[in-house]
Amino acid sequence: MAQRTGHRAAPEHTHPDDVPVLTALAALADPVRLVLVRELAGSGDWTRSCGSFDVPVGKAALSHHFAVLRGAGLVEQRDEGPRRVNRLRRTEFEARFPGLLDLVLRETPTA
Amino acid sequence: MAQRTGHRAAPEHTHPDDVPVLTALAALADPVRLVLVRELAGSGDWTRSCGSFDVPVGKAALSHHFAVLRGAGLVEQRDEGPRRVNRLRRTEFEARFPGLLDLVLRETPTA
Repeated sequence: MAQRTGHRAAPEHTHPDDVPVLTALAALADPVRLVLVRELAGSGDWTRSCGSFDVPVGKAALSHHFAVLRGAGLVEQRDEGPRRVNRLRRTEFEARFPGLLDLVLRETPTA
Repeated sequence: MAQRTGHRAAPEHTHPDDVPVLTALAALADPVRLVLVRELAGSGDWTRSCGSFDVPVGKAALSHHFAVLRGAGLVEQRDEGPRRVNRLRRTEFEARFPGLLDLVLRETPTA
């Protein structure tokens, strides 16, 4: 159930343990989401706001992409005042799908 | 280049080494293709014809799914008379994307 924190609903999350492999694969099989995941992997936890990523999509599409990443257990978000900041759930996702994140992180961004 | 063998073009293949990770993930992120891959993993090489899989799609869609799997380096096909038979490229795909096939094969079909 979404809880209200200020003006918008707090983001809902799915733990990686509850994610089917098909959902995980589909979440990662998208070029924009791959950029988000790769940039998060190179950033400290909670240092990146949603608007800080260099992806060629509008605000609504970006919001959708983050919802997909949350639903696949890849990203955790929290609101800090007006900013929604992010963390890659690297350890938990790795425990659920060993090696999968490494596969997408080891490739060059054009691959 | 497609070569003619009898009445139809021989299938074209992509070696796993030439497959971007995004293509591999997208190929596996589909419930019908997951069934095909899982059934192939449980069958001997070249024992399964394209028509032998229990998937709820028509002939044209099935042909498309196999083309996607060939393009992702997951499946090799050859024509034996009227039958097109299949082999999962397990070793080559594993070498290119370590652990990825195991992730999708270890789950129950409903996951």
